[in-house]
Amino acid sequence: MSELYAARRTRLRDRVAGAGSAAALISRPANVRYLTGCAPPGAALLLGPADDVLLCGRPLSGDPAEGRPADDVRVSVLPSRGGDPVVAGADLAATAGADTLAVEEHHLTVTRHRALSQVAPRLRLTDLACAVEGQRLVKDDEEIACLRIAAEIADQALGELLESILVGRTERHLALELERRLVDHGADGPAFPTSVATGPNAGRSGHLPTDRRVEEGDFLSVCLGANYRGYRCEIGRTFVIGTTPSDWQIELYDLVFAAQRAGREALAPGVECRDVDRVTRHVLDAAGYGERLGAWTGHGVGLEIDEDPQLSPAAMGKLDACVPVTVEPGVHIPGRGGVRIDDTLVVRPEADGGPELLTITTKELLAL
Amino acid sequence: MSELYAARRTRLRDRVAGAGSAAALISRPANVRYLTGCAPPGAALLLGPADDVLLCGRPLSGDPAEGRPADDVRVSVLPSRGGDPVVAGADLAATAGADTLAVEEHHLTVTRHRALSQVAPRLRLTDLACAVEGQRLVKDDEEIACLRIAAEIADQALGELLESILVGRTERHLALELERRLVDHGADGPAFPTSVATGPNAGRSGHLPTDRRVEEGDFLSVCLGANYRGYRCEIGRTFVIGTTPSDWQIELYDLVFAAQRAGREALAPGVECRDVDRVTRHVLDAAGYGERLGAWTGHGVGLEIDEDPQLSPAAMGKLDACVPVTVEPGVHIPGRGGVRIDDTLVVRPEADGGPELLTITTKELLAL
Repeated sequence: MSELYAARRTRLRDRVAGAGSAAALISRPANVRYLTGCAPPGAALLLGPADDVLLCGRPLSGDPAEGRPADDVRVSVLPSRGGDPVVAGADLAATAGADTLAVEEHHLTVTRHRALSQVAPRLRLTDLACAVEGQRLVKDDEEIACLRIAAEIADQALGELLESILVGRTERHLALELERRLVDHGADGPAFPTSVATGPNAGRSGHLPTDRRVEEGDFLSVCLGANYRGYRCEIGRTFVIGTTPSDWQIELYDLVFAAQRAGREALAPGVECRDVDRVTRHVLDAAGYGERLGAWTGHGVGLEIDEDPQLSPAAMGKLDACVPVTVEPGVHIPGRGGVRIDDTLVVRPEADGGPELLTITTKELLAL
Repeated sequence: MSELYAARRTRLRDRVAGAGSAAALISRPANVRYLTGCAPPGAALLLGPADDVLLCGRPLSGDPAEGRPADDVRVSVLPSRGGDPVVAGADLAATAGADTLAVEEHHLTVTRHRALSQVAPRLRLTDLACAVEGQRLVKDDEEIACLRIAAEIADQALGELLESILVGRTERHLALELERRLVDHGADGPAFPTSVATGPNAGRSGHLPTDRRVEEGDFLSVCLGANYRGYRCEIGRTFVIGTTPSDWQIELYDLVFAAQRAGREALAPGVECRDVDRVTRHVLDAAGYGERLGAWTGHGVGLEIDEDPQLSPAAMGKLDACVPVTVEPGVHIPGRGGVRIDDTLVVRPEADGGPELLTITTKELLAL
């Protein structure tokens, strides 16, 4: 695994050197983990000019959830009152003779950036921009293997919930139970706060669980994901509580299902991201729900639950093979509830069988 | 309650005007909530030059955990593809005729700050610095009432755990169970990720729960807190598993207990923060554990779990009445484990009975 991280850092180093910087300081946690295998809270990675140093504010915990640093990364633990690892990194770069340092301006605050200038006044700070995020877009086999396990864990947790009694239980309890099951099945934790939405809440994007109890006749929409070795997936399903879904529920469900299928089927290398969004959105738009849709209908996943690419009308760029994305349209009708259906898939060429569905729980409209 | 938020905003407005700015844009979530009663993810508050506007990227959820905006705050929901509320706030300030806008440079990234300059090039951006954090330091009665409830919830959750069977259960499961109990007792959620540490992990600050199971003879240290209406408290206790603690366990426990008591007893209005840290640290230092201590031995709590003041050797400033702080020394011996004891207290003058202990679970060394 150490070679993998070394190759990622070499690729970044080449890019940084090509842009005229001797060194780079990476502070965004997911980027630090991508390049070193490890991201203790607040740590920063100094890439060159000499060796690669992971600066940490406290000793490594050794916990698998935090990861382990690659063998060829030097770990430097600041003394217990040693301040900010990012500032220490700039100081180290200057001491090691760098004259230019590329930093992540989209992650550093104005105040922190100023502290770097103050600790190393002769160091010219440039913007690394989203270079590491760009590298993270296409996933390698190890990353996809982690995502596959994460999806399997989420499927298992959701499957078990469906076998239990739901009526009378609150959204909060169901969400906590799902998170416990994720951990039972080997997740390092939930990938994001689990959303459970019943009745009039169902179908709301990012709904925070409340004390509302599940009732007969409700729509129940659930969105959860597992974090496995830092990699995060997402699955969302909507069910009906009771024996027979009513007509409006069946209609709305079929519509959202059709939209989600259209999005899934549009995934292929070379396709514009906004075109995937457009075909998904079109189905709902044509049925008069265009105004109720959010800003996007899907997004990339990986070391963060919401990363590039974005599937939205304004998105630039095309999909590549081995890019994992969600397809997750939803409609929420105020006062009535709604439907969301959400899968994580990996973009694959048609010759390889087309998009690989990671979250395999059924998308039939189940009555629970 | 709306008058309370209006008074907070008036105080801030006076300060901003005194510093020569016509308007301020508040983006740090806890600060937005403090001034409006509400903080949907990503929202920003524009204070003046005309009315006060809460800019949101999506409609308010109405969930109590998110809060409700004060009546005299205008809520402006950006259209679903309307971009960043902070950028929209700068645009609105410029349109409303402001020539200067104070922003939170310690919260805005360099990239976002640049986007503000671009959307409103004639607007001079100044630094609001930690003006709102400064206002948040001393808590009013409503805030302390929320903290008191949060502490009561944490005490209840911990008390119930102590009555259950612990041997053989993993750190992760115990942490999840504690979080479920917090919610059962009315918390909006945990105040921070619950820490459960057994055996060689016990006593480690901020330990992330692992799959290690509780064994006879272990130290078990637990740190948890409830979030109630946005306010967060903290409690930490260490127990021994089995019937008789061994000698080294009793000695270490008594030592940390003495250090924690010294810190608690030092809390009074007018006392230097670093002096509270010094008396706490001194007890452990004298016993030879000085090197094992972290950078601080306590910190303020409120809308964030870790806010000013800091109780550390380098801390500037004195305690005031009605400032809630934690006192939480701990010692961890690699390979053996350790002890942490953590309370949330409110600083009160001696005439009012001295420091008010919010987290009342016993600090006897219990053998469970």
